[in-house]
Amino acid sequence: MSAGRLYGVGLGPGDPELLTVKAVRIIESAPVIAYFAKAGRRGNARSIVDRWIPAGACEMPLLYPVTTEIPVSDPAYNEALRTFYDEATESLAAELAAGRDVAILSEGDPLFYGSFMHLYIRLKERFAVTIIPGVTGMAGCWSAAGEAMTWGDDVMTVLPGTLSRDALAESLRRTDAAVIMKVGKNFAKIRQALRDSGHYDRAIYVERGTMAGEKIMKLSDKPDDVAPYFAIVLVSGQGRRP
Amino acid sequence: MSAGRLYGVGLGPGDPELLTVKAVRIIESAPVIAYFAKAGRRGNARSIVDRWIPAGACEMPLLYPVTTEIPVSDPAYNEALRTFYDEATESLAAELAAGRDVAILSEGDPLFYGSFMHLYIRLKERFAVTIIPGVTGMAGCWSAAGEAMTWGDDVMTVLPGTLSRDALAESLRRTDAAVIMKVGKNFAKIRQALRDSGHYDRAIYVERGTMAGEKIMKLSDKPDDVAPYFAIVLVSGQGRRP
Repeated sequence: MSAGRLYGVGLGPGDPELLTVKAVRIIESAPVIAYFAKAGRRGNARSIVDRWIPAGACEMPLLYPVTTEIPVSDPAYNEALRTFYDEATESLAAELAAGRDVAILSEGDPLFYGSFMHLYIRLKERFAVTIIPGVTGMAGCWSAAGEAMTWGDDVMTVLPGTLSRDALAESLRRTDAAVIMKVGKNFAKIRQALRDSGHYDRAIYVERGTMAGEKIMKLSDKPDDVAPYFAIVLVSGQGRRP
Repeated sequence: MSAGRLYGVGLGPGDPELLTVKAVRIIESAPVIAYFAKAGRRGNARSIVDRWIPAGACEMPLLYPVTTEIPVSDPAYNEALRTFYDEATESLAAELAAGRDVAILSEGDPLFYGSFMHLYIRLKERFAVTIIPGVTGMAGCWSAAGEAMTWGDDVMTVLPGTLSRDALAESLRRTDAAVIMKVGKNFAKIRQALRDSGHYDRAIYVERGTMAGEKIMKLSDKPDDVAPYFAIVLVSGQGRRP
């Protein structure tokens, strides 16, 4: 008996029609469908594929440990996640070793800031893997906003909002186009960095891009600093336009 | 009679199965399908959608002017492209004004270095537009290579290979992960910049990612500096990995 194949399946930015044809084919036929979720919740990944999963599919939710009491900087946080990924890896390995293909659902693109990557590096030397790329969350956001991001020889930089104000401002000064991810609690700092770098008036705020409840506005029109973790700020490039 | 709607349809990185479900739906139903091509050629965009276009669809190839004799820096080059985009815009506007929806095919994602953008900025105030995001060429390449690009709080920078050696090296030093586009004639310079910044041994070369003739190797294993314009170099990030 040969081992199963692991599929990392990109789901795109949230609209179920933005799965690729290949992603749908794999999800419709995979013997086991695994996905990350918080305990007691269904999870966004599972919700996105609702219309594509066959009735009676074998589903394997991977439930994140509860870490709300532990600061990210505490080694115990890292340790809790490491144990979780190690245990999830062995659950998946058991299915693969038994000859069953496993599809792991991954919001956006599997190899771009995806939790899937932590399982991937643990399994890729042991089993055959196929990655199905997906439309990134940021591409969903700039399409929804109608922001043409990069022109000609523009440089584009993707920045986590967790960086310091100075690091953000310095990176913004050195790029043509920028995407700032992980807005959430970093919102006020991101606003300051955009003012520091002179990009504030061009910045666009996108929340839940391509999904129900989508909000798109100029950042300068957003009256408060309240944003979900996955909200994004876009600064489009101004390069060559014949 | 109401005017038609313009669709900018992302086709993904080249594998026809990497179109989104939404892109296929629009292509199967759009009264007019427009795409860029060189005179005498079918064009890569049109080839990617071969299996999805209905027989008898109304196709509108937009043929780039021949500019091989004109250097990119010559104002005549810009002028030739401007005239071409202006004329293409009027052809599309005539269809839209006559009430027909038009889908413009765009390799990768429509708003990420896409020729579509030159038509989009000319038409978006005159007609209703919907953008269908696509899997970018770079995501197709890193998935094909199995390169997990960005971890935790990694910064990722997208750099055109047309930049100077010093500008490339400086940007590489300041980022965690990098994608270098437009390799082609810039290959030798890109190699030098990667050596300057200390990323040479980690760099991955990808040619025709997700397509027939795909080539993936460590950059240091590539014996020559011969590459097509659309080849890509990847440097993956090394961020937080519990």
